Amino acid sequence: MNTDATTGAGEARAEQDREALVLERIERVRRRPARVREDRVTLAHGAGGKATHTLVEAVFLEEFRNPLLEPLEDGAVFDGLALTTDAFVVTPLFFPGGDIGDLAVNGTVNDLAMCGARPRYLSAAFVVEEGFPVADLRRVTASMAAAARAAGVWIVTGDTKVVQRGKADGCYITTAGVGTMDRPVRLSAAAARPGDAVIVSGPIGEHGVTVMIARGELDIQADLASDTAPLNGLTERLLAACGDGRVRCLRDATRGGVATVVNEIAGASGVAVVLDEDAIPVRPAVRGACELLGLDPLYVACEGRMVAVVDGEAADAALAALRSDPLGSGAAVIGRIADDPPGLVLLRTSFGGTRIVDLLVGDPLPRIC
Amino acid sequence: MNTDATTGAGEARAEQDREALVLERIERVRRRPARVREDRVTLAHGAGGKATHTLVEAVFLEEFRNPLLEPLEDGAVFDGLALTTDAFVVTPLFFPGGDIGDLAVNGTVNDLAMCGARPRYLSAAFVVEEGFPVADLRRVTASMAAAARAAGVWIVTGDTKVVQRGKADGCYITTAGVGTMDRPVRLSAAAARPGDAVIVSGPIGEHGVTVMIARGELDIQADLASDTAPLNGLTERLLAACGDGRVRCLRDATRGGVATVVNEIAGASGVAVVLDEDAIPVRPAVRGACELLGLDPLYVACEGRMVAVVDGEAADAALAALRSDPLGSGAAVIGRIADDPPGLVLLRTSFGGTRIVDLLVGDPLPRIC
Repeated sequence: MNTDATTGAGEARAEQDREALVLERIERVRRRPARVREDRVTLAHGAGGKATHTLVEAVFLEEFRNPLLEPLEDGAVFDGLALTTDAFVVTPLFFPGGDIGDLAVNGTVNDLAMCGARPRYLSAAFVVEEGFPVADLRRVTASMAAAARAAGVWIVTGDTKVVQRGKADGCYITTAGVGTMDRPVRLSAAAARPGDAVIVSGPIGEHGVTVMIARGELDIQADLASDTAPLNGLTERLLAACGDGRVRCLRDATRGGVATVVNEIAGASGVAVVLDEDAIPVRPAVRGACELLGLDPLYVACEGRMVAVVDGEAADAALAALRSDPLGSGAAVIGRIADDPPGLVLLRTSFGGTRIVDLLVGDPLPRIC
Repeated sequence: MNTDATTGAGEARAEQDREALVLERIERVRRRPARVREDRVTLAHGAGGKATHTLVEAVFLEEFRNPLLEPLEDGAVFDGLALTTDAFVVTPLFFPGGDIGDLAVNGTVNDLAMCGARPRYLSAAFVVEEGFPVADLRRVTASMAAAARAAGVWIVTGDTKVVQRGKADGCYITTAGVGTMDRPVRLSAAAARPGDAVIVSGPIGEHGVTVMIARGELDIQADLASDTAPLNGLTERLLAACGDGRVRCLRDATRGGVATVVNEIAGASGVAVVLDEDAIPVRPAVRGACELLGLDPLYVACEGRMVAVVDGEAADAALAALRSDPLGSGAAVIGRIADDPPGLVLLRTSFGGTRIVDLLVGDPLPRIC
């Protein structure tokens, strides 16, 4: 280690120059209109990171553009209602702590909850491969029914398509959901303000790592289970505890993990998110598995955890509300919103340094939801 | 041919006996609770016929049972809203007259229209195979956008998942839709009454036959195009023209065709549907292709045609309303509701005979939607 003060200052300057260069480069990229450079869809386009954002903006938003779609939130809010949808292609279909069925119900329930809505009615569409065991389909539907009961929603309409052997991987499920906006909230990734607190509702990364290990392709044994859970009870408590307008934004940290969520917030709000690495709850088993897999837990999907941005003065009330629910018992303030540098996420590391946390490039964990 | 009158009477009796036996057997089967006999899902489970009904009743309804799902209509109606969903796995993705994109929008728009709702907001979830051309995705989304504009709906939320090469057949799309119940109607397959007229909005079978031929596996050339179209304008006209309560049921004749729709109505209403073969509009090209393919047009999917059951006294007004719209210019009364035999569909053939039109067994046309 270099302990010479003068050299240290020089290194700090060089580091600042490098950082300025990086920021400038990032700014240049950000100003460009989204454009898909690839001729063909890659797994990265489904990973929730950079490639997904580009695809969504350059293709879907470009074609479908309307004022409800444009904010690209977890769901669309109109006429006192919220509507959302998610497709589920997780492999394996069954894993410790859950399966594609409860994942599909909880995923849509959570997207509605993140809009501030009370989840009410779900639709479920199945694409099933010829030869799929009927017993597995029963197991999946039983799991969906249990998840729906737990979340207090009804599955009211559906569809089933069967494709030939080899044309789907067992079964894919798409759920959509309607919720009612019982509270006068307008949550948005664009609503974060300097001074706000960034809270996570519990330890991160459990779902992604569990599914990865459940594939059995890796010689790793770990006592892990998916965190899949309905978060509508938790959002209800949080919104009730904080009062109108003090919860700025809620996002469940699914594909791309917490890192992706906070990047979206930083970008949409034009603020900096400054995270404190030591404050981010990660269970030892998840940390260990991530080290073996070469993954950063910040990018690993949860299916029962959310990021909440709340008024800094409401942070204690928010934490207390979350912790009063078993699903939020591990809630923690993991960072703050700052005004500079806008659009970026900075992580103060355990070693006292700071690094930029960018959107995910590529897909280290395909098909975890 | 036997022309002896006595023998003819004997044959008629024998025919009656056979028919009584068949009816008794059908009744026995109908009384049994639905049970899936197969261990594995087959293509027939996705065909919209008998196997689909059994799967839906024995697995999905059994697990998800609630008062909104139970009627098994095209969508669920609650709180002045309708919600519906459909998965689309058509192959090929592009065919004369349409593609998976407009099919996915029109399919959900039509299911909402069949509930008597005004289609408003759609969600769209994509499962895309790695390697799928981005240009094709653009083509599909452009087609969805055009279909949405034509139907007067917005696509307000979505999701994209990418699966590895070989794990999907290009791209699958699931749409869900929310409509508003602007009229005080309560349409239901259980609402048909003896004396009602059965109307079809135009010539049948075009979509299914077009897609089948577009696969290029058959050495058939035919000047055919899919009938995919939004039917909400047509249902609007019909409901306005007939007045409250005189339209009993609307169903778009998709998978399983008109035969399946009228069987569902006969079963749910406990009535007989008596169709007149000569009155059923089928374009010559469709009839010719069906003959070559060994298909009965009554079972072939349409994606822009509906069956309407209306009060017999409103039949003329209904026909006039449908025919005033280009999409309904070929509308025709194709049959009547009778009280006996309950639950069955009878077809008076062009040759003067009568045959039972049952639900589809097997799947002669897999993946046409």
